Amino acid sequence: MTDQATLDQECINTIRFLAVDAVQKARSGHPGTPMGAAAMAYTLWDRFLRHNPRNPAWPDRDRFILSAGHASMLLYALLHLTGYDLPLEELKNFRQWGSKTPGHPEYDLTPGVETTTGPLGQGFANGVGMAIAERWLAEHYNRPEHEIINHYTYAIVSDGDMQEGVTSEAASLAGTLRLGKLIYLHDDNDIQIEGSTDIVFSENVARRFEAYGWQVIGPIDGHDVPAVETAIGQAQAETERPSLIICKTIIGYGSPAQATAKVHGEPLGEENVRAAKETLGWPHEPPFYVPDDVLAHMRKAVERGQAAEQDWRQRLDAYADAHPDLAAQFQAQLRGDLPDGWDEGLDALFPPDTPPIATRNASGQVLNALAQRIHALTGGSADLAPSTKTTLIGYGDFGLHEYYGHNMHFGVREHAMGAIASGMALHGGVIPYAATFLTFADYMRPPMRLAAMMGAQVIYVFTHDSIGLGEDGPTHQPVEHLMNLRAVPNLTVIRPADASETLEAWRAALLNREGPTALIFTRQKLPVLDRTTLAPAGGLQRGAYVLWESVKGTPEVILVGTGSEVHAALDAGKQLAAEGVNVRVVSMPSWELFDEQPADYRENVKPSAVRARVAVEAGIELGWEHYVGLEGAVVGMQGFGASAPREVLYEKFGITVANVAAKAKALLGR
Amino acid sequence: MTDQATLDQECINTIRFLAVDAVQKARSGHPGTPMGAAAMAYTLWDRFLRHNPRNPAWPDRDRFILSAGHASMLLYALLHLTGYDLPLEELKNFRQWGSKTPGHPEYDLTPGVETTTGPLGQGFANGVGMAIAERWLAEHYNRPEHEIINHYTYAIVSDGDMQEGVTSEAASLAGTLRLGKLIYLHDDNDIQIEGSTDIVFSENVARRFEAYGWQVIGPIDGHDVPAVETAIGQAQAETERPSLIICKTIIGYGSPAQATAKVHGEPLGEENVRAAKETLGWPHEPPFYVPDDVLAHMRKAVERGQAAEQDWRQRLDAYADAHPDLAAQFQAQLRGDLPDGWDEGLDALFPPDTPPIATRNASGQVLNALAQRIHALTGGSADLAPSTKTTLIGYGDFGLHEYYGHNMHFGVREHAMGAIASGMALHGGVIPYAATFLTFADYMRPPMRLAAMMGAQVIYVFTHDSIGLGEDGPTHQPVEHLMNLRAVPNLTVIRPADASETLEAWRAALLNREGPTALIFTRQKLPVLDRTTLAPAGGLQRGAYVLWESVKGTPEVILVGTGSEVHAALDAGKQLAAEGVNVRVVSMPSWELFDEQPADYRENVKPSAVRARVAVEAGIELGWEHYVGLEGAVVGMQGFGASAPREVLYEKFGITVANVAAKAKALLGR
Repeated sequence: MTDQATLDQECINTIRFLAVDAVQKARSGHPGTPMGAAAMAYTLWDRFLRHNPRNPAWPDRDRFILSAGHASMLLYALLHLTGYDLPLEELKNFRQWGSKTPGHPEYDLTPGVETTTGPLGQGFANGVGMAIAERWLAEHYNRPEHEIINHYTYAIVSDGDMQEGVTSEAASLAGTLRLGKLIYLHDDNDIQIEGSTDIVFSENVARRFEAYGWQVIGPIDGHDVPAVETAIGQAQAETERPSLIICKTIIGYGSPAQATAKVHGEPLGEENVRAAKETLGWPHEPPFYVPDDVLAHMRKAVERGQAAEQDWRQRLDAYADAHPDLAAQFQAQLRGDLPDGWDEGLDALFPPDTPPIATRNASGQVLNALAQRIHALTGGSADLAPSTKTTLIGYGDFGLHEYYGHNMHFGVREHAMGAIASGMALHGGVIPYAATFLTFADYMRPPMRLAAMMGAQVIYVFTHDSIGLGEDGPTHQPVEHLMNLRAVPNLTVIRPADASETLEAWRAALLNREGPTALIFTRQKLPVLDRTTLAPAGGLQRGAYVLWESVKGTPEVILVGTGSEVHAALDAGKQLAAEGVNVRVVSMPSWELFDEQPADYRENVKPSAVRARVAVEAGIELGWEHYVGLEGAVVGMQGFGASAPREVLYEKFGITVANVAAKAKALLGR
Repeated sequence: MTDQATLDQECINTIRFLAVDAVQKARSGHPGTPMGAAAMAYTLWDRFLRHNPRNPAWPDRDRFILSAGHASMLLYALLHLTGYDLPLEELKNFRQWGSKTPGHPEYDLTPGVETTTGPLGQGFANGVGMAIAERWLAEHYNRPEHEIINHYTYAIVSDGDMQEGVTSEAASLAGTLRLGKLIYLHDDNDIQIEGSTDIVFSENVARRFEAYGWQVIGPIDGHDVPAVETAIGQAQAETERPSLIICKTIIGYGSPAQATAKVHGEPLGEENVRAAKETLGWPHEPPFYVPDDVLAHMRKAVERGQAAEQDWRQRLDAYADAHPDLAAQFQAQLRGDLPDGWDEGLDALFPPDTPPIATRNASGQVLNALAQRIHALTGGSADLAPSTKTTLIGYGDFGLHEYYGHNMHFGVREHAMGAIASGMALHGGVIPYAATFLTFADYMRPPMRLAAMMGAQVIYVFTHDSIGLGEDGPTHQPVEHLMNLRAVPNLTVIRPADASETLEAWRAALLNREGPTALIFTRQKLPVLDRTTLAPAGGLQRGAYVLWESVKGTPEVILVGTGSEVHAALDAGKQLAAEGVNVRVVSMPSWELFDEQPADYRENVKPSAVRARVAVEAGIELGWEHYVGLEGAVVGMQGFGASAPREVLYEKFGITVANVAAKAKALLGR
């Protein structure tokens, strides 16, 4: 072996045994994949990855995703060895409370972790989103002789990733979009938890990815550094197609139980740790051993990274000299700043005499108005743009012969859309939105959950929000979905009552930089509430507000509605008032925004003393006790919807003004 | 044209214009796909489909799935014309309240509809489940010279279906399992809602399906009856691989707007209806025109179908003579009957001195005990069987060199697993279960929702049900999931507190034939509650029951728990009792079962007068107000979990005996 080859092996074994020792110490974790994939990961990081361990936020860094998140120790070892702020002590605290080394990599917790992974397939699709954002920014901001955004997106993906549908969706789209700077290494070890992959996975992965329009390289020996090096070079040379490098590896390489499912998800055990170290010529003691020459070699990443960033900063300065406005906008977008006056003029969109308009249509108008000022806004729909009203008119399509357009076309691939939108947000420089019917939010629950966990600013546009969509029937009518989304931590759900609230909802979504927002819109037309006699729609920013009351002061009964049902609440309120009831109508577009208000505001809106409360929403009733308690009443759905015209459905399911009024009177004993 | 060819065209045009006229009359719907796919569907139904319109439940019929459910009128037209109990009047009532012709096909509403479709990809995967059930039953029940189960599963699938991840998952598995009697026709019309498929879908579908191990036939002209006929014949001739027939069609065939997205999702409009009829030589009046010779020809399906079923019944009689026990078991399985004594001996599984055991392990024991008596039980996991404890020991694997095994291996494909399980249940003859971690229920929400809507008996086994799973961290720790599942209508969720309740939970799941049941189990060990001093676990069947109380009579405070947290509730209750509080502890494994109890039972368990109620559950707190109201308290999660050992997490997140007791005392003002 050459000196370099010897050193390479030493580095690779260091990674392997940091993982083995950490799992052993934690008494839980996944040693097999780090042992098998160490060589390919090392080769990528040592020979190719352009990153700066001293500044994990450098915008033009290459992105690296460990889609097989259970192999987290592989990533932590690389981060530690290449000089990120992740001391060895943290590796020794693997999977412990308060450590930066949780069981699966978590974005925003550990420097250098680009996305939270673990649920399979998500990382694969996140990477496609990052590559889209890179391509889009490059098209918009690079200028001749000024290339300020130009990086690769790499990932290590497992057999399990390959089986998930979200991977198929994202891979098909990546091929269609010809994302040439996407380079994925498939850790092909033929083992999964239930045994050998051939029980369940006999497909020809290479052929499948070629069908998607990818360059497929290999199979190569994933333990062979020069082979991996050559393959990545080949992948970089192909600029028109994403590349998949199939690396045959042995899971748990070096352990007596290698190449079996046994090494996947539990510590090797003292005996096998010893045997593995012996097999690979590694000293048994101390654990967490890092040879000096390994550290010296791998820490060179710091110097390389700093130089690379320095070089980029110089190019950025030159760019700023040549194109000062563009450079300023570019930097602001990367910071996530909204431009000055971004929401000016919005309030004039829907004057008091605006005729009835579906909130999805109002949303389309607001979105188009915002796009004129907020260049970073870019997104699309899972093949429903004409229905979700999310097309940015005059802004072109992304990927149809050019990459300048703002309109993404995700195809009928909701799951990948969600994960891609997260990847775009994590990349930075864009504010992505993703649209479909509310009922199909079910297809994208996993990435929505992860976006909430990561605090990624993704805006979901969910239209056709209830039985109000009518004839398409129960498969298309969301019922449980509003409550489902409200239960997700850090996801803000907003269901506006009319065009004016729709505008405010978009405002809230753009201001919410700490997590995703789900905007919920109707298919059907709704009157625009007369704000000359009702409270201003700006109350939406506090989640709920008193829309109207028959007299000032403490009411006898409170009617609470969201979205299209605010109108039923209001009409019922007026009817009750005419009958002499002292009534208050509350519009409650967002539970999350309301619940984070100070106690006195909440008390003002719904005084504790008033327990006669009726909530009305064309969704499942369960959960509304959060506001109406056991003494109140709910007018909502108790089961699935049906196929019929909207008016018939509201009547048949009893979501009517009469029913709201009747329940209120029953509560008051009248 | 031959007479036959002329008649064929007339039949096809009848189908087309029934769809066009129905959509036009309803003023909503999808005319384009019925017009484009009428010829291929007609060819399949007229020349191949073995079914009996007079008995849609005939067990050995071919299954036909319209995966592109939005083309529902295509199916309704076929059902009407071939003689199902679906009069023309129903077609005229398309998409109206109370009709049998809803916007998307609904199982159990319309005779001949094999599964509810609309959400794309689901029908594709349902069909794979039906083909699995067919194959499994054939292996178990056919005998030399007695072939009593032998049918095809057909589907028409759209471009949109092809883009969904669930389709990829199911297709990959179908190829691996070599389901040779699965024959799908791909309606390849190159149009989707946002325009041409080439914006988003440039992949080579044929090559992709070959990679999965399918036979791919075509592209052929999908409007050409003899071509479709030849292709289906070729598909039938291939017995080792599923077949995909790629049929090039023109969406909205005959309309002036054909081959554009305009004809997809709205009525053609009077003018274009007229033009289309003129183009295809169809009389403009009357609407819903069915020529006599068309009806006479297509109604021959009744005679053919009755003869086919008659022939089968004779074979079944011969089989019953030769193998009376097998035949009786086969028939009972098809009816869904549980065998006599199916739950005998179960109660002895966990005697009072049973050491602590995780409910997932207890579930594994119960499942294995049940399988000994209930032959129909068959299912598996999405590559987590060793963790979900769902392996039926000694029952073999399905599809690994043979099809006799009870253990399905779905691969890391939760979404397809859910839809396949539904397909198996809909086929009949099996009681399927599908297992994964609770957090990954998110991957399979769409098929779970449809199973609930259809009332299909699918048993979901969800383990690793809370932060109690420990170090794998927040990506793997369900938080919002329990509440999410409870919000789905007709889905019964059961979270047992110990081994004894686990046994009862399985009993409830097997008895619930009207819909799916989600069984929720822990990763961690739990004590087996001492039923000599506590109420019997059989109380689970009523959803909630008084587990223990300090004295008989009305308590001062009620502590309610589910699953692992029942133990915290109980310990807190004992502690409070020791301090002189009159306390009651309620185990509430299932909200759904409890809420359907008579009012007096519910009142007995949680007397209205007692408003000091504390709920404890290691899930999101939102929703528990359903039981504790605004005066009660909840001890639960308010956000995502973290990676650390279980004991640490319970402590850090405050889900402790001390906290339950403290909140109870606070409510009592002590």
